Amino acid sequence: LRKILLASHGKFADGIYDSLQMIMGEQKRVSTLCAFVDRKTDLKKEIEEIISSLSEHEELIVITDIFGGSVNNLFMQYVSKSRIHLISGLNLPLLIEMVSRVEEEPENTESWLLKILDTTKNTIMYCNDLLVTNSLEEENF
Amino acid sequence: LRKILLASHGKFADGIYDSLQMIMGEQKRVSTLCAFVDRKTDLKKEIEEIISSLSEHEELIVITDIFGGSVNNLFMQYVSKSRIHLISGLNLPLLIEMVSRVEEEPENTESWLLKILDTTKNTIMYCNDLLVTNSLEEENF
Repeated sequence: LRKILLASHGKFADGIYDSLQMIMGEQKRVSTLCAFVDRKTDLKKEIEEIISSLSEHEELIVITDIFGGSVNNLFMQYVSKSRIHLISGLNLPLLIEMVSRVEEEPENTESWLLKILDTTKNTIMYCNDLLVTNSLEEENF
Repeated sequence: LRKILLASHGKFADGIYDSLQMIMGEQKRVSTLCAFVDRKTDLKKEIEEIISSLSEHEELIVITDIFGGSVNNLFMQYVSKSRIHLISGLNLPLLIEMVSRVEEEPENTESWLLKILDTTKNTIMYCNDLLVTNSLEEENF
């Protein structure tokens, strides 16, 4: 069973989860971790609790806000564990593609994730260029 | 003068702005539009007001949550205007890079944006692979 954790500095994780729910409905496999919102929280401890609560047949895909940020750095310590997968650069195309395909059972989670990353990266783009391309096509035909 | 508008279904835009502020401090050039949170709001009218409030020497860079989504679709109608730039696939590496460089005065905003997109796309990645690469390097040297 694959679970997805969205983790960010501040309220980004909760915010994108709100958008995800608006588009795809409630997602029981997805949870969020908004770091540094409450100064009392011990982030390292919280992460350890999440990781240790995983059962033997569960995999955790963590998607963090930004590579090199402190949230991603903390999770980097756990990627040597075979059931923890870490992706940086949380965005909605990636999240929607992943949630849509989370029930798939690929033999290899790594290659499954790399495919999803590859597909969705191309939708992060400068949209004005599309208009130019479309106009050119219209001129040609 | 370049302004940045973050626009999303639900609270994603406000959420990522919270994270941006936590990392980079207050950003006066950045504003947010969270669509469909309040059902009474006329989104199309709101967008028209934002666009028409731009003064002659201002450019607006809109970053939306997802290509093909209704928020991005609505903004597509304005990309033929020379001072409106539309990017889909809002994420934190892109936003931080853009905010850091927003004072630059490139001759051509389009190529400036394409460079920023190109740089930051590579940080959306599967971090477990880094560990493998690092271990291999360590073995070699």
